[in-house]
Amino acid sequence: MAGNAFGTLFRYTTFGESHGPAIGCVVDGVPPGIPLAEADIQPFLDKRRPGQSRHTTQRREADLVRILSGVYEGRTTGTPIGLLIENTDQRSKDYSNIAESFRPGHADFTYQAKYGIRDPRGGGRSSARETAMRVAAGAVARKVLDAVVPGGVAIRGAMVAMGDHAIDRARWDWAAIDANDFFCPDAETAALWATELDAIRKSGSSIGAVVEVVAEGAPAGLGAPVYDKLDADIAKALMSINAVKGVEIGEGFAAATLRGEENADEMEPDGKGGVRFLSNHAGGILGGISTGQPIVARMAVKPTSSILIPRKSVSLAGEAVDVLTRGRHDPCVGIRAVPVAEAMLACVLADHLLRHRGQCGGFPAP
Amino acid sequence: MAGNAFGTLFRYTTFGESHGPAIGCVVDGVPPGIPLAEADIQPFLDKRRPGQSRHTTQRREADLVRILSGVYEGRTTGTPIGLLIENTDQRSKDYSNIAESFRPGHADFTYQAKYGIRDPRGGGRSSARETAMRVAAGAVARKVLDAVVPGGVAIRGAMVAMGDHAIDRARWDWAAIDANDFFCPDAETAALWATELDAIRKSGSSIGAVVEVVAEGAPAGLGAPVYDKLDADIAKALMSINAVKGVEIGEGFAAATLRGEENADEMEPDGKGGVRFLSNHAGGILGGISTGQPIVARMAVKPTSSILIPRKSVSLAGEAVDVLTRGRHDPCVGIRAVPVAEAMLACVLADHLLRHRGQCGGFPAP
Amino acid sequence: MAGNAFGTLFRYTTFGESHGPAIGCVVDGVPPGIPLAEADIQPFLDKRRPGQSRHTTQRREADLVRILSGVYEGRTTGTPIGLLIENTDQRSKDYSNIAESFRPGHADFTYQAKYGIRDPRGGGRSSARETAMRVAAGAVARKVLDAVVPGGVAIRGAMVAMGDHAIDRARWDWAAIDANDFFCPDAETAALWATELDAIRKSGSSIGAVVEVVAEGAPAGLGAPVYDKLDADIAKALMSINAVKGVEIGEGFAAATLRGEENADEMEPDGKGGVRFLSNHAGGILGGISTGQPIVARMAVKPTSSILIPRKSVSLAGEAVDVLTRGRHDPCVGIRAVPVAEAMLACVLADHLLRHRGQCGGFPAP
Amino acid sequence: MAGNAFGTLFRYTTFGESHGPAIGCVVDGVPPGIPLAEADIQPFLDKRRPGQSRHTTQRREADLVRILSGVYEGRTTGTPIGLLIENTDQRSKDYSNIAESFRPGHADFTYQAKYGIRDPRGGGRSSARETAMRVAAGAVARKVLDAVVPGGVAIRGAMVAMGDHAIDRARWDWAAIDANDFFCPDAETAALWATELDAIRKSGSSIGAVVEVVAEGAPAGLGAPVYDKLDADIAKALMSINAVKGVEIGEGFAAATLRGEENADEMEPDGKGGVRFLSNHAGGILGGISTGQPIVARMAVKPTSSILIPRKSVSLAGEAVDVLTRGRHDPCVGIRAVPVAEAMLACVLADHLLRHRGQCGGFPAP
Repeated sequence: MAGNAFGTLFRYTTFGESHGPAIGCVVDGVPPGIPLAEADIQPFLDKRRPGQSRHTTQRREADLVRILSGVYEGRTTGTPIGLLIENTDQRSKDYSNIAESFRPGHADFTYQAKYGIRDPRGGGRSSARETAMRVAAGAVARKVLDAVVPGGVAIRGAMVAMGDHAIDRARWDWAAIDANDFFCPDAETAALWATELDAIRKSGSSIGAVVEVVAEGAPAGLGAPVYDKLDADIAKALMSINAVKGVEIGEGFAAATLRGEENADEMEPDGKGGVRFLSNHAGGILGGISTGQPIVARMAVKPTSSILIPRKSVSLAGEAVDVLTRGRHDPCVGIRAVPVAEAMLACVLADHLLRHRGQCGGFPAP
Repeated sequence: MAGNAFGTLFRYTTFGESHGPAIGCVVDGVPPGIPLAEADIQPFLDKRRPGQSRHTTQRREADLVRILSGVYEGRTTGTPIGLLIENTDQRSKDYSNIAESFRPGHADFTYQAKYGIRDPRGGGRSSARETAMRVAAGAVARKVLDAVVPGGVAIRGAMVAMGDHAIDRARWDWAAIDANDFFCPDAETAALWATELDAIRKSGSSIGAVVEVVAEGAPAGLGAPVYDKLDADIAKALMSINAVKGVEIGEGFAAATLRGEENADEMEPDGKGGVRFLSNHAGGILGGISTGQPIVARMAVKPTSSILIPRKSVSLAGEAVDVLTRGRHDPCVGIRAVPVAEAMLACVLADHLLRHRGQCGGFPAP
Repeated sequence: MAGNAFGTLFRYTTFGESHGPAIGCVVDGVPPGIPLAEADIQPFLDKRRPGQSRHTTQRREADLVRILSGVYEGRTTGTPIGLLIENTDQRSKDYSNIAESFRPGHADFTYQAKYGIRDPRGGGRSSARETAMRVAAGAVARKVLDAVVPGGVAIRGAMVAMGDHAIDRARWDWAAIDANDFFCPDAETAALWATELDAIRKSGSSIGAVVEVVAEGAPAGLGAPVYDKLDADIAKALMSINAVKGVEIGEGFAAATLRGEENADEMEPDGKGGVRFLSNHAGGILGGISTGQPIVARMAVKPTSSILIPRKSVSLAGEAVDVLTRGRHDPCVGIRAVPVAEAMLACVLADHLLRHRGQCGGFPAP
Repeated sequence: MAGNAFGTLFRYTTFGESHGPAIGCVVDGVPPGIPLAEADIQPFLDKRRPGQSRHTTQRREADLVRILSGVYEGRTTGTPIGLLIENTDQRSKDYSNIAESFRPGHADFTYQAKYGIRDPRGGGRSSARETAMRVAAGAVARKVLDAVVPGGVAIRGAMVAMGDHAIDRARWDWAAIDANDFFCPDAETAALWATELDAIRKSGSSIGAVVEVVAEGAPAGLGAPVYDKLDADIAKALMSINAVKGVEIGEGFAAATLRGEENADEMEPDGKGGVRFLSNHAGGILGGISTGQPIVARMAVKPTSSILIPRKSVSLAGEAVDVLTRGRHDPCVGIRAVPVAEAMLACVLADHLLRHRGQCGGFPAP
């Protein structure tokens, strides 16, 4: 209950600081009999890994994950899965100034206010390094979804805006995502961003972004209505990612400008005894329960506060200081937030899938 | 874990359907010794109560709350507080058509998909009637905040946009809020909305809105970082309110368009050994922990799907039907969502206050 | 997390004091589509009801339960079930002395130490009156077990010792249970107890007891090993009942005196592809998971501390006083603890059944 | 919620199998600023470590614990504490027979029934090896108790019976505990046990035991009454330890034989404005809340089922087999259960201390 765990039935707990010896997590509640190996997790960690282009931080971490428990002869046993990643490139001296003053826009001040003590090396626990374990847990969640849901669930994310430049949705191409440094589904906009981000980086500044995640194949019926609505849990999951300041589902804030007849998705018989929706303003969720349509969520990522431009702040001793953050940083943290957002969506869906099965049955063991 | 409870240490559980005999809740974890009576709760229920202007549903509920337990001689005893409201104006016949087909934009289809059964009277459990208990629990949360935090915590909400018409923030006046039917802090815009909503209502349509809530006086240090960040729990709390499709904190989605030096709030010594922030783009939360500044959150409320305009849908028997919803509805549910949003913010803060005290101490019993 | 709820997926929360206007509970997580009416709950409440023989307290409560939500047209809808019982026979004056001094053996002192305030009327929240809601929730749990487990689960309890007089297990007859005032499966011993308890009651004293509960039909595989072992949760459930001071499973404390070859239950093929156990020292649980054999648990119930014999104590003002408790009390609270123990076992099993289904599948919706 | 975590505010989660690469845990919710190093944990692990006398299993594990996170410059930071122990002496071949048949009295059958798969090496997750992490978490809990409670809390355990031979309580001497191989407070009985256990071990058998744990210094007021009573959580904690079949508090099962006036502890003024109890039949807990007296609990530990005497069982293929368990085993697992029981009691108290502080305040940060 101190906030380092996520989920109820599919539940994982993380630990570790940016510059400690290792980070890790325990994934509990995984159904038994699911094939699982490090090779199922590593590719997602590799997507999030720093230092892969000039547009992300130059910290270089191998981020090699080890499975310490919960798997026997290549299959999950139903017991907790311990995952561990050793930290290898900490360079503590880069961050020595953090100890003495509060970086504006960072958690330095609030950790100090809350705990009266903090690990300043690389931001300690508040560092985005923790998100590596989210990605690892998310990879396990994907395996659960694919094992339990017939046909599997595809979860993909994309960066859809950087600063004032949003993508052109008419050019959306999932195949483009792996062909640029931005997880951008619009190749043309990606090229524009590359130029723009070069300039921002060189000026020592940073920029915000919007990330969109989509889950296809999730069955209708997921979500525990009222307080644990599927969208409420997605909102919590995404807002818990470092630097996120806003979350929306389907039309999101645009829904505030619509009329009832514009917003409500009409239905018709699908000819197979079921229902077909004629639009998806709802983003795949009604009354907190999935409709069977694609689940669509977006999140706003603020610009990194670690910049080379001096900013006014206060020292631990209470004196006025100027702070600028040297070292290795992401000029647009929205980029590396894409695999993290995918992972969180996977975790929410895996959890609600098991919760639904617990209360309502269905989804037999394969 | 079936989603009808909210919070961890300050935790409440609700029950009840729109047209059942009563709705109620149990508020658990309230500190002992706090003065509490029905008169502390009723005013907030009265703010949310339907039928108070032509702009809200004409259903008339007295919404009289009874305290059934947990209070002795006017003070809380630390035992659970049972709260009950009898339903008095159900008029079931208004809703008889819901049983036979799925209203577009409503939870009819998803409840049926999840449970295979649903109470169609007034939408049953998916009705916004449940939010009355949120407001009641929120009133208790306010008492907790005011008893434990020196100086108290003031939580206020406002509707800041209806459809395309946002307020002019230069005219923000908290005193205006109680002087119009919209909880609008800008009297001029409120007048415009009144005209517009009359037209929308008469046309049988509905419109979306944006609601903002602000907490002043919350101390620095609240929030359990990583997964139970204060903003993550606020996001979940607000997104769990009926019809909400987006949540943002501080700059929110606008942060995606900013540079690092524009977004990060600078600090200076406050002359009393503490820190003064020079701006509040963060909305009072950094790294998931409160800064001591005002906490600012907004939510997007979709237009009511209950409209008089016929929409395509499907019957329980699987046939194509047209649905239009007669009966008493809110043309803009954003209005009555204001006291609900305030209540949810109060509950999140009370919970995190007790959680903080549990782990870190401080805030001695009065 | 303030201790007024029990269970994870099948979870109920209770409220109410001995002499408040009502007691109640919310049962959350019940699978949809299960037939449920007040008539399914009332018989179990009637078994627990006071005033049914000269051997239990003469307080007379109708204990009529009302279902306020979660049921539509006679079936559960998957939404929370609100249950309410009005208190009708409070007679507060009987208990006026409790306010001024601490009754030995009661929770008066500890509630005061914890909360600094307490509702003294009838012991307030610490009264065994709360157990009526356990019995009500247990009745719902039985319905869940019977709906989900093929063949159903039979849960029965018995008083097996009173003071120094244990039953003769060779005479165990479940049919005898309803034919005496003690839920005693040994008619001969029941007659002995009746004489003995008359004498104890007339002397103003009270006596302890041992209660045994047995669940037959629970499938193999229930229990979440390590911390939420099935026996660990049963131990917590039974120990949480008022006046219980010990819990054991199967051989229980007798296992401490056995050799490995005496205690471990041998197995043989059952001829149907499964396993037959040759004994049940384990009480139906191995490694925290049910074996499919009958689940057997016992609990020790202390003698009521409400007695007519003066005892030394201390007043609220800190002075030495003598306390004796007039009013209506149970000379042997073990008797009325039998239906409560049954209910708790039912709740544990229903919860673990849904938890098992969530993680491992199986038990399809009927 | 799959059962691998314990506690609410002070909450730890474990992972690891007997013969996997490592076991570990995450301790979450620890207050900040508490001195903590491996040297605070290792001595308790050393007490539990196998192979220290001829009376325990000859498996040899260094059991060296590493702190991976949550501590900075020797003090806790309030962030999760990751703990890791590498397994070094697995000898898998000793256990190869387990894979093919179900050992009587073990969890082999039930894990297979629940999960359809199990790690047979050394019993996998069901091995008592997991209890090393309980002891590690318990050592952290002790630090929390000592930091928050003025004067600290002393938690000690002892083996008080082995088979039919109970200690003579008149000879109880805490100093004797470290002077024999049994954690026995009665040197004379310890000598008797040594002779007896040699014979049992040589005959290939095993024997049960009773363990008692006592906490001195715990303040009055701990415990969340009704379902999370302090004794209910202790019962769960102890019953969750491998091989435990019974738990009792204070008089325990003996209370069932007492009269009310014998059992209820009388009180008198302590001359300092407080209360002094004249006896402690209650074992330090009334109404689920601590009284301030020593908290006393006992647990029954069954004889190890791993014995050299052939027992009837069934193979995975469903055929009748005889099973005898070679390899290294404890002839009396009660011995090594003593430090585990102490650890669990420490964890329950630390958790309830923080829970109490959260709801009721008090216990300021040092």
